[in-house]
Amino acid sequence: MKDIQIRPATSADFEAMWTIFSAHLATGETYPFECDATREAAQGYWFGPGVTCRVAVLGERVLGMYRVVPNQIGRGRHVANASFMVSPAAQGVGVGRLLGEHGIAEARRQGYLAMQFNYVVSTNTAAVMLWKKLGFSIVGTLPKAFRHKRLGYVDAYVMYQLLQDPDHWPTTDE
Amino acid sequence: MKDIQIRPATSADFEAMWTIFSAHLATGETYPFECDATREAAQGYWFGPGVTCRVAVLGERVLGMYRVVPNQIGRGRHVANASFMVSPAAQGVGVGRLLGEHGIAEARRQGYLAMQFNYVVSTNTAAVMLWKKLGFSIVGTLPKAFRHKRLGYVDAYVMYQLLQDPDHWPTTDE
Repeated sequence: MKDIQIRPATSADFEAMWTIFSAHLATGETYPFECDATREAAQGYWFGPGVTCRVAVLGERVLGMYRVVPNQIGRGRHVANASFMVSPAAQGVGVGRLLGEHGIAEARRQGYLAMQFNYVVSTNTAAVMLWKKLGFSIVGTLPKAFRHKRLGYVDAYVMYQLLQDPDHWPTTDE
Repeated sequence: MKDIQIRPATSADFEAMWTIFSAHLATGETYPFECDATREAAQGYWFGPGVTCRVAVLGERVLGMYRVVPNQIGRGRHVANASFMVSPAAQGVGVGRLLGEHGIAEARRQGYLAMQFNYVVSTNTAAVMLWKKLGFSIVGTLPKAFRHKRLGYVDAYVMYQLLQDPDHWPTTDE
């Protein structure tokens, strides 16, 4: 694990990221994108305006990636949203956790006051457990909101955590 | 009330809609957009690709509007999202309720299986009460997720309702 580095993603990483992205979509178990998602959609998702994107690499090999974006504009932009994907070939060895910790720290560094996941598939127990370990709580349950490829309609969770002590949040408009 | 009609919005309605939109943004109490939101942003919000937009009119006068869009792509597109705005000059006479009922019926007609509001400001009690009356439940609470212009950071609610009996939802992938 100590040789894994996390660094800004570049366009040279895109092919490897597209492979990971496509593998996730093919399962139909974790993300809303379907198999027919285009390379352009993936490009926009990981490299669009306002997206902070980082990759975990072991030497030349991309093991996974995350993105951080504002979850809302304007009066909701103090809350970050983030997405994480790990290569199927690198699962179960802690890459998700490394990326998660890094993404949370990055959002905090950028001044976000909280982080929200809008759509964690309830049957993705590895993800739910990881996010709980990293400080998130389930703050909402969306009944049958995800059409799981194998299981049919399943619940999705909204998960959330404050990133800064609210007593020290910046003052607002007035 | 019986003379109020709800019909598809056209580009000729945009000026009136922009006035209503701007009035809501100026309060800073209900929607994340800030006062510096552009006409282009409003245009995209109400008339962008995939947006169903309806206006409530009394003769020539636009009293309010709603939009219905998929809340997620792909594996989440069976859940609708909707937004509603009523002209400050027409508030308190039931236009919101008319629009709400119409929007729910429209989403059902389009085949959506559920409807989700991602971001109902908790202090907007009139809205929260209306949505409860129209069948929504609070399924999540987002701590301090909205930067209210007068009150500072306040909670936002995720609200949700099924639009069709799940026993009769269409079968899925497999």
